[in-house]
Order: sequence, then structure tokens, then C-alpha cells
Amino acid sequence: MRVGDIAIGAEFVVMAGPCAVESERQLIETALSVASAGARILRGGAYKPRSSPYSFQGLGLEGLKLLSKAREVTGLKVITEVMSELDVDAVAEYADIMQVGARSMENFALLERLGSCGRPVLLKRGMTATLEDLLRSAQFIVENGNPDVILCERGIRTFETATRNTFDVAAVPVLKTVSHLPVIVDPSHAAGVRLLVPVLARAAVVVGADGLLVEVHPQPDKAVSDGEQSLTLEQFDAMMADLEPYLALRTIGECAYATAGGIA
Amino acid sequence: MRVGDIAIGAEFVVMAGPCAVESERQLIETALSVASAGARILRGGAYKPRSSPYSFQGLGLEGLKLLSKAREVTGLKVITEVMSELDVDAVAEYADIMQVGARSMENFALLERLGSCGRPVLLKRGMTATLEDLLRSAQFIVENGNPDVILCERGIRTFETATRNTFDVAAVPVLKTVSHLPVIVDPSHAAGVRLLVPVLARAAVVVGADGLLVEVHPQPDKAVSDGEQSLTLEQFDAMMADLEPYLALRTIGECAYATAGGIA
Amino acid sequence: MRVGDIAIGAEFVVMAGPCAVESERQLIETALSVASAGARILRGGAYKPRSSPYSFQGLGLEGLKLLSKAREVTGLKVITEVMSELDVDAVAEYADIMQVGARSMENFALLERLGSCGRPVLLKRGMTATLEDLLRSAQFIVENGNPDVILCERGIRTFETATRNTFDVAAVPVLKTVSHLPVIVDPSHAAGVRLLVPVLARAAVVVGADGLLVEVHPQPDKAVSDGEQSLTLEQFDAMMADLEPYLALRTIGECAYATAGGIA
Amino acid sequence: MRVGDIAIGAEFVVMAGPCAVESERQLIETALSVASAGARILRGGAYKPRSSPYSFQGLGLEGLKLLSKAREVTGLKVITEVMSELDVDAVAEYADIMQVGARSMENFALLERLGSCGRPVLLKRGMTATLEDLLRSAQFIVENGNPDVILCERGIRTFETATRNTFDVAAVPVLKTVSHLPVIVDPSHAAGVRLLVPVLARAAVVVGADGLLVEVHPQPDKAVSDGEQSLTLEQFDAMMADLEPYLALRTIGECAYATAGGIA
Repeated sequence: MRVGDIAIGAEFVVMAGPCAVESERQLIETALSVASAGARILRGGAYKPRSSPYSFQGLGLEGLKLLSKAREVTGLKVITEVMSELDVDAVAEYADIMQVGARSMENFALLERLGSCGRPVLLKRGMTATLEDLLRSAQFIVENGNPDVILCERGIRTFETATRNTFDVAAVPVLKTVSHLPVIVDPSHAAGVRLLVPVLARAAVVVGADGLLVEVHPQPDKAVSDGEQSLTLEQFDAMMADLEPYLALRTIGECAYATAGGIA
Repeated sequence: MRVGDIAIGAEFVVMAGPCAVESERQLIETALSVASAGARILRGGAYKPRSSPYSFQGLGLEGLKLLSKAREVTGLKVITEVMSELDVDAVAEYADIMQVGARSMENFALLERLGSCGRPVLLKRGMTATLEDLLRSAQFIVENGNPDVILCERGIRTFETATRNTFDVAAVPVLKTVSHLPVIVDPSHAAGVRLLVPVLARAAVVVGADGLLVEVHPQPDKAVSDGEQSLTLEQFDAMMADLEPYLALRTIGECAYATAGGIA
Repeated sequence: MRVGDIAIGAEFVVMAGPCAVESERQLIETALSVASAGARILRGGAYKPRSSPYSFQGLGLEGLKLLSKAREVTGLKVITEVMSELDVDAVAEYADIMQVGARSMENFALLERLGSCGRPVLLKRGMTATLEDLLRSAQFIVENGNPDVILCERGIRTFETATRNTFDVAAVPVLKTVSHLPVIVDPSHAAGVRLLVPVLARAAVVVGADGLLVEVHPQPDKAVSDGEQSLTLEQFDAMMADLEPYLALRTIGECAYATAGGIA
Repeated sequence: MRVGDIAIGAEFVVMAGPCAVESERQLIETALSVASAGARILRGGAYKPRSSPYSFQGLGLEGLKLLSKAREVTGLKVITEVMSELDVDAVAEYADIMQVGARSMENFALLERLGSCGRPVLLKRGMTATLEDLLRSAQFIVENGNPDVILCERGIRTFETATRNTFDVAAVPVLKTVSHLPVIVDPSHAAGVRLLVPVLARAAVVVGADGLLVEVHPQPDKAVSDGEQSLTLEQFDAMMADLEPYLALRTIGECAYATAGGIA
């Protein structure tokens, strides 16, 4: 699966950026910084899941244009969420990868529509979805014409309250074993607090994840959303440096599950 | 916290052995093999949680004596589960570490009794317990006179069915941050299938766990319990070898959470 | 809130019919029977949540037309599910009440669109949604212009396997206390097995529910979906008769919670 | 199953009293009042599950003696919790029914010991136990010599926060169908707030429960534990009066599940 010159599933790919696109300045500053630290894809929400009708709903088309501009400036590819069937064409025009959020994992009308969007789709696991549920939703997109689906583990809902969700680290080797689709980990939503993001990212690397989706913000305390779980630019740099020796231990593209001597 | 010459919390310690002590031959063969692969402590159940009145209930006192004999033969220390207040003295006579199972985490009468047992206690997290619940139960033991409590993450119950439990990998850095107690990971009960055990063990290493508790059996297919999640002797060897480079990346005793640049 | 001559929230209203509209004969036979037993509204799916791309997806527009025909024949009003933003206009043309399924409770794009659909909306609680989540989704519809929202408790996901979901019977008095919206109970999806439907319906009546949404099929064993939880026509008759004395004990429209002496 | 002249399972039995025995005055005042309102059995904790080592741990033996005295004064039978194997004999000396709390449902050592205690045992469902788990624990007591087990549904842990637990109302007809053991409902722990207790009690009655276990306190706001979910004496009177017409609709001892036309 290729996104420009990036071979997703064959190399470890980091997608990073703010939860929401807030302004040109915020976005470009973040994009330049994460690109320099080794990210290949810029994330940023233009259409936000509005769990309350009173909360920030994203910049919409304006946000998409800013993402496009950031791509020109930095060379990063762009991933952004689509929530409405009616926005699929607009998002596909500006984004390189279409993101489906956890709340939309069983929005079958949207999944069906994404079967013909002409872009790879990153599909997040629903908050209490089993891996079988996730794969069934992926199958919906594939059966409707689009084989380029990227699975994303982002933590599941449990009774634990120390973290926003519980990162199901075993999901990575399980999915890699039963499916050929790439598996990306979102440690930001799994953790819910930024201090835990780098260590969960490490775990993702050593169990064989194909990449990360990470929230980064120049000033997390001023972010309009998800500030508590966003890394600063400096913390993202440190995390990328921390991951290097673990990545060096991997034979890229090979499943950690197998290398651990498990399967043979 | 010292168990003989082992400094738990200061060095990475692997506890390995069969789910249940079945026979002298099975136990000694396993003990010799895991010792040679680098384990320091032998696990093995003499008193088994009998979730059905018809299932195997362990060898009891006979099992304790076999564990003691295996200790003499191999130099390994011994950990085994205690489930009844009435068995505390007997288990303390033969074991070096007392294990409290997930089902007993809120057996406050037992915890209170373990406060004066004179042995370190490994306390497993209950199946749907929060980390706060776990720490409160630990506090029970400490307040009753025994400061030597080892916490154990062994997976929690979720709606996922691909694994027996969901390994809460974030539990390790969270517990290491809010408590000074050592944190051990049991990847066997978390996974429920042996193929996943080594890769979960890797994750435990890189997030800062102080050790592992692993089920190993010479012939897992003939085990009286937990055979599906028990490693063969060869798989345990392979797992220990696989973990080496990851352990080499750790500054032993330092919390991964901190080294990831999170806290500073 | 009025649907024709039915005052939802002021009288106890039963909505009944097949999970899916399968044929004119199946639908009309069911509609005549449930009308004669006292149901006021006919339920039936024309667009089905297709959790697998290979399963039955409903008759679509043809199904809507059959529902409309059944309304003419029986005088029953019609409720049916809408899953796609693109189907809102079509469904609103044929249905009297728009149903939002559990999987769509957080499909905010759909909820927003339903704010201007001109029809009352029955909003089902998501499988692991809290009541606060449900009310927030309801607020989305209201804020977008449509005050006529009916809440529906249909059971939540738990570890229990004897039933398909766990009917949260307390949800009814809680919702009636904190909101002025009518609350309907779907005992069919809560139970998952038909034998439990009548007894859960009783519980719904005595805790103050404003009505029921029940699956009924002339030949449940031949139903294309949800046959195990569908009542036969005779069982529905028996259930309606069974509920009568419990309904007689209610001061209609008054909250059971209050009459139990709780609030005063 | 008889407790004195009470035929548990054949008549509807209400067990009521304070969470904890606090003083003679509190206990006798409560006992006289609930007896006059129709309760047959007095509940009250002498040994409390001490989820924190710093919280009130009950009056112990002194509490048992007060319960015994209240029995003499009122003619009520007595139920109280036992948490330690070492307390079984003492509790059996003073109590008519031994209560096993939710946290002890899988304390197999305790269950085994209760097999020979010579008293009926009320076994509470664990917080996330399935009904199959509950029945397996009951089987433990039965297999160890004691056929007199009373099952108790007291709500299970879910993600809902409006109530302390989620009352699994379907548990009653399911248990009554697959087992011959009596089923009691504890609406107090299910609800967690007193205003919901009477309406959940109603639901318990109409689905066929064999009785209730209810927390009542003369001054709930001054209770040492569970005050929020304890009814006042007046509220308990009102609840008992409210239940009368629902009880009159039952053919006592017959399963609501069956009468709803489900089984036939």
C-alpha cells in the first residue's frame, strides 16, 4: 500500500500533528517540527466528532486547505478524519489518507461510501469493539472496492480510570497474524495523558506495529481539544529519539509475534 | 526487597514454572530447564483456585514439599499461591514468596493474615479491578505489618475474545509512578495462548516491568491446567534469548516511563 | 409529542412488528395482528445495519412502500430505521417516526441532519453508552431544530452471556427524572431470546416506561434476522394481555419513580 | 428451604436493616420498624468488607450479639455477612442465614467451609460475574454438603455512572429457569441511591424474585456506611405499601417468566 513514496506496512511510519487544525501558524509550526523529527504524515482534524453540540466543530473546508498547504510546505502526506458521507468527496480531494474515527467504526453507510473514495482509509477500532468487529468493518470497505485499509488500535474502554482507554497491546500481533492489513497504534488516545504516550509508543514498536498516530501541539495547554494527551514539539522529538534503538532491533516489516519464536 | 540474593525491584527477575505442580518429574525437569535459561524463581501451584468443584484442586502439602525439593536441586527460589487463611502458615513454611491470585485480591481476611506471614507477597490484580483497587489491597497487607508487596498485572476482563484477558500495558508505568512497589507482569494469563506470551513479555520489558511470571510446562498439551497458555521449555529458552537486547536497552531499575522523557 | 392521534409520553404506546420488512404478506399479517392486540405503531426495518457485508441489507425503498401500505390497511403509524444521511428524506417521506439504531447513536452527522427532518426521532442508546452519552446525542437533534426526541433503552453490553444485552431497568426512572423526553423500552434486543421478552416488558411497565418497541414475526424461525428474539403473533397477544393489570396500576403518564415515594 | 417458619422460595420474603450494626439503639429501632412494615428477616453487618484498611470494620462479635438480641425482641430472623473462614463458626452461632458478599463469591476456601456450617447461605453475585459463575460458586457450597443456597442479584459493574451498579433484572427469570434455588434481589446495592430503590424493588417483584434484601437506617445521613442507598424507616414503609398490589398480582411461588406466557 503506497501513499506517495511511503510504503505503508513495509516501513515504520509515524503520523503526527494536532488533534484539531486551529490556525495556519499552529499547523505549519507543528508540521515542520514533526517532519524534522522523522514523521512522514501530518495528522490534523478539520471535521471534529462533536460529542457536544456546544464544542468546537473544526474549521471544515478551511482546515482541509490548511492541511494541503502544510503538505506543500513540508512534503508530509496528510491524514484527516471524515465523519459524514456528504464530506467524503471534499476530504478525498485534500487528504492522502481518510481517517475513520472510533465512533464511526460501525457507520456502515460511511464505510460503504469509502469503498469508492480512491484513497487509503485508516479505520480506528471502536471503543468497545472486538478485533473481529474491527475486521468486519474493514471488510466492508474492501468489499465495496477499496483494498487499502489501515487498521488502528487506539485503546478500548475498561473500568480502569488512570488512563483514558486501555491500550490493547496484544491487538497488534493478533491482527498481524489473522490479517495482511497494516496496523497502526494511536498511543495518544490510548493513554489520555501525555506522559504515558512515549512508553506506549515503545510497546507498540516492539510488538510489531507498522506505525504510530500521535497528537502533537506547540502549546498543548492552549489546544482547543485533547491538550492533555498532546506531546509538545520537544517531547515528540525525544520520543522519536527514544524509539530508534527499538526500531533498530526490528527487522522492518516482519511481525514481532513471529520473531519472538512464537509461531515456529 | 530481597528474596535470598535476589533484589526484587532492582534487577529484572523472571519467575517461571508450571501452572500446577503435577509430579516430581514434571516439576524438577521444568525447574532445571528454566533455571538454565535464566529464571531465578520457580512458580507452581500446590493449592489451585477451583472454579469448579469437579476440577483438579492441586497436590496441597505434597505439592509444597515438591517445590521445596526443586529449590534444593536447582537453587531457584519458590513462589506459590495461597488461597485460604488456614493455609498461610503451611505455605509460608515452604515458599519464599506468597502469591495471591486475582480472585483473592479483595479477600481482605486473607490479606490481613498475610500482613504477618513473614514472606514477601505477590498480589495479582483482580479481573476487573482498577489500579486504585489493586493499590488499596496492597495497602491492606502493608498496614498489617508486611511492607514487602509485589504488584502483578495479569490482564483485565474486556469484551475482546482473541485473548483470555487484555494486558493493560500502561498499568506498569502508572504503578511505577504512583507507588514504590515492584511491578511484575504475567503475560501467560494476559494472553491465554502461548503464541502471544513472548511478544507481551517484550512489551513488559520496554515499559519498565521489574520482572515476569510465566507458565512453562515440559508438555503443555498434557498439562492438567492452563496448557494452552504454557510455553514449552524450548519456547521459554527462545523467549529469554529474545528479551536480552531489550533488557540491554534498559538502565535496570529505572522506570521506562521516566526514561522516555515523559516525566522530566 | 403527537404522532397523529397518539400522544407519546402521555399514554403507554406499543410499537411492534418484524425486525426486517421481508414481504407484503409477512408485513400485513403482522400489522393486522399487532394492531388487534393493541399496538399503535408498526415497526419494521427497510434499511438494515449490515454488520457483515454479506448479510441481508433490507428491501430499501421497496420496504418503505410496504410499510406505507401497511399503514393504510391498519391505521397503525410507522417507525423505521434510518442509517444514512442520504436516506433521511426518503425515510421521512414514508415513516411517522425515524429510528436511530444503537450503532448510530454517535453518528453526529446523521443526528444533525435529523434535526431538520420534520419527524419525531426515536434514539436508541448505544451498546456501551452511558445515559449521559444518550442525552448528549439527543441534545444534538434538539439543538439542530427538532425537539421531538424519544429515548430508547435497549440493553447494554456486559460480560453476561445468558442474555444478548443487559436491560438497564434503572435507566427508565433515571431518564424520566433528569429529562422530559419520553422513554421507550426495547425488550427484544435487551433479552435476545423471546422467552424473556414478556417479563422484561412487565418490568418496563412498572418502572414507568412510556412504551415498548417489540419484535414480532408470524414465523420467527423463518425470519431473516433476529428470529430468536421475535415473539410469535400469539405470544405478542399473550404479552399484551399480561401487561394489562400492571398498566392498570399506573397512573398513566406519572413516573413510577415518583409514585414509589422516592422523590417526595 | 425453611428458616424457622419462613419458607424461602415459597413466599415473598423481605430482609431489611442497616448496612452495618452500629449500636443497640440503631439496630432495635430499625428492627421494630421493618418488622411492623412486613419484613421477616433482619439484615445487618457485624463484619464489614473493609475495602480500605482505614474504614469502619464492623463491631464483630459485639455486633452478632446485638443481632441476636434484636431477634429476641422482634421475632425477626437474622442474616449477616461472613468474610473469613475463621469467623464461620461464630457467625453460624448467632445468625439464621449466612451472607456471602459479592467480593467473596469466588473465595472458594470460604464457600467450601460454608458447606458444613449448618445454616442456609445467601450468595451474592460478584460484581462482574456471569450467572454461570454464580451458579458454579453455589454448586461449591452444595457439593460440600449444604443444599440451602439462596442466590442474590445485586447489580453488576457497567460503564453507567448514574447508578452504583446495573441491576440485571433479567437475571431473576434466567436463574429461576435454570436452577431451583430461590433468588433474592438487593435493590440497594444495585441502585446506590435511595430514590431508585423502591422502583427497582417493584421490578424485582414483577419478574418473579423470591424476596428482597434492603438497606434501611433510621438516619441514613448519619450511617457509617452506605447511607446514600439506605431508605429511611418511612420510605421503607412506603415501599412495602407500594409493592402490595404488585405482589397481589403474583401467584406466589410461580415464576413470572412462566406466567408471562413465555415458557408454555
